[in-house]
Amino acid sequence: MFKVIEYNKTSLTIINQTKLPTVEDYETYSDYIDMVDAIKKLKVRGAPLIGVMVAYGISVCLNNCELKSSHELIKYYQKIRDAFYKSRPTAKNLFYAIERIDDIIYKKNYSDVDEILKLVEKEAIEIHNCEIQSCLSIAQIAYDKIFKQKESYNFITHCNTGSLATGGLGTALGIIKYIHQQGGKVHVFVDETRPLLQGSRLTAYELQKEKIPYTVITDGMAAQIMATNSIDAVIVGADRITSMGDVANKIGTFNLAIVSNYFNVPFYVAAPVSTFDLSLKNGKEIVIEMRDDSEVTKFNGVEITPMKSKSMNFSFDVTPFELINAIITEKGVLSLPLNLI
Amino acid sequence: MFKVIEYNKTSLTIINQTKLPTVEDYETYSDYIDMVDAIKKLKVRGAPLIGVMVAYGISVCLNNCELKSSHELIKYYQKIRDAFYKSRPTAKNLFYAIERIDDIIYKKNYSDVDEILKLVEKEAIEIHNCEIQSCLSIAQIAYDKIFKQKESYNFITHCNTGSLATGGLGTALGIIKYIHQQGGKVHVFVDETRPLLQGSRLTAYELQKEKIPYTVITDGMAAQIMATNSIDAVIVGADRITSMGDVANKIGTFNLAIVSNYFNVPFYVAAPVSTFDLSLKNGKEIVIEMRDDSEVTKFNGVEITPMKSKSMNFSFDVTPFELINAIITEKGVLSLPLNLI
Repeated sequence: MFKVIEYNKTSLTIINQTKLPTVEDYETYSDYIDMVDAIKKLKVRGAPLIGVMVAYGISVCLNNCELKSSHELIKYYQKIRDAFYKSRPTAKNLFYAIERIDDIIYKKNYSDVDEILKLVEKEAIEIHNCEIQSCLSIAQIAYDKIFKQKESYNFITHCNTGSLATGGLGTALGIIKYIHQQGGKVHVFVDETRPLLQGSRLTAYELQKEKIPYTVITDGMAAQIMATNSIDAVIVGADRITSMGDVANKIGTFNLAIVSNYFNVPFYVAAPVSTFDLSLKNGKEIVIEMRDDSEVTKFNGVEITPMKSKSMNFSFDVTPFELINAIITEKGVLSLPLNLI
Repeated sequence: MFKVIEYNKTSLTIINQTKLPTVEDYETYSDYIDMVDAIKKLKVRGAPLIGVMVAYGISVCLNNCELKSSHELIKYYQKIRDAFYKSRPTAKNLFYAIERIDDIIYKKNYSDVDEILKLVEKEAIEIHNCEIQSCLSIAQIAYDKIFKQKESYNFITHCNTGSLATGGLGTALGIIKYIHQQGGKVHVFVDETRPLLQGSRLTAYELQKEKIPYTVITDGMAAQIMATNSIDAVIVGADRITSMGDVANKIGTFNLAIVSNYFNVPFYVAAPVSTFDLSLKNGKEIVIEMRDDSEVTKFNGVEITPMKSKSMNFSFDVTPFELINAIITEKGVLSLPLNLI
């Protein structure tokens, strides 16, 4: 099996997801500039895994810096924190991880550098363990409450929400793996997820490793698939969820939710509580990352479109709560609209 | 400007659409095996243009065969007719063109070979001229009845429905070009149209030649575009239309129609009358071509998915009439459901 992320105190090793599924290439970083670059280039991606990567990354950088005082440490932390903070704008988990480390660095007034380093490392490991545990709880809850009734399930999923997105079992894909592990018969239609093909590259890669039958489809095929196949549910992940239950997720999710709704196919979002951003009510308040045109206009460096063609490359879209049947978290299944206090 | 198709009695020259937009490569054929291969490989595609290609192709083959009697001619025609007939299953216009030539060969009992050859050639040229005239009429009718009211229009379109699909101005894209020619301000969001990218390759190519502003988007982006931009209408073409008004068109059309419906954006189909198949009522009766998995699992010969991944490659889907605001033909604008007698 592959290793998604590995922390070694003074370095961090990741599998380069941009080269999958063809090449299993591991890269090791000890410098924050390389780590931020890896996040920006999507060598590491998936909302929960970005949070884990940033927490481990901060710990590695602090361990490497031979800092002599807590004052020096805070100054250096400020610099690397800002770089990580600006790496990607939409995934909530990145900011959640940074806020948890902020609490140690800024709020507790530790004077012993070694103590701070130990606490940051402990926090990073705990963030990772939390994601692993959350994935398992999400899967167990989904299985017990929704997916235990039938002998076989036919799903559609979008993007990648497995180990490569979480560092654990996965969120949406974690549920699918769990049903399979419990002996349920599962088949998955995998949206290829243009432009960067996280579905056909990464989700297919994980499903093949797990020996779960799957069929790759283009993102435009969902309606035809639902019209000609019996689909039990669509399950996707989330990058940020507002207090009303609007969900930012990989571009194409909103289309898929509308199509599911048209066919009365249940549409579920699976995400850990760390994905919620209760400071936002409406999905329109979520900052949507715009990525470079070339992701759409080129493929593997080869031009697809005529030279100088303009593209619009929303990396995410926002699915309004009314299209979502439920959000499955490690704390339970939330039906919408959310009534959070 | 590029030439889409050119008939020269004993040969037929086409622009190889699989190499566009990077290379403008013309290929000349005199043999039906090469022509059928070109249709199967989508070097020539687009429902109306396939009809034109087949009609010209038959004429070229008959002209080349030094046939001595009408009996010999009928025998030879049967062979090439079958090969063309089986080249692609969904586009109605292919069968429409063959039926028109059948009428000359089978029904009229001509004994003079030269007379038959002249009549077949005349019919082929007329089929092409018909498509050219239909495109113009569709565009004029659409402009006069629907798109004359506003100074500027923001469209979404799918696949390619221009000169490269018709040999004329185009159907859906013909309307857009015509509005631009009349001085209307037009911007087009172009669905890239996976798996074969007829949108980002061919529609973008034609729009750039016409100097019409466009933005290429992935097929999964429509909902996010409609949520954040003011879209006046979606216009697409058709490969076959049933008597109720159900429309087979390039895979992804059905998704787009459902999304348009959700946002209350008018959804128009533009097609010549030759696209109608009144022998079918319900869209479920339409034979949908399944193309090779490798169109989804590979890109430019490079594997995208893990080895041995399964794909499902519907080349078309069927949009039910209730999602379509109107079908624009050269005979007028039809609202749905159709009430044909």
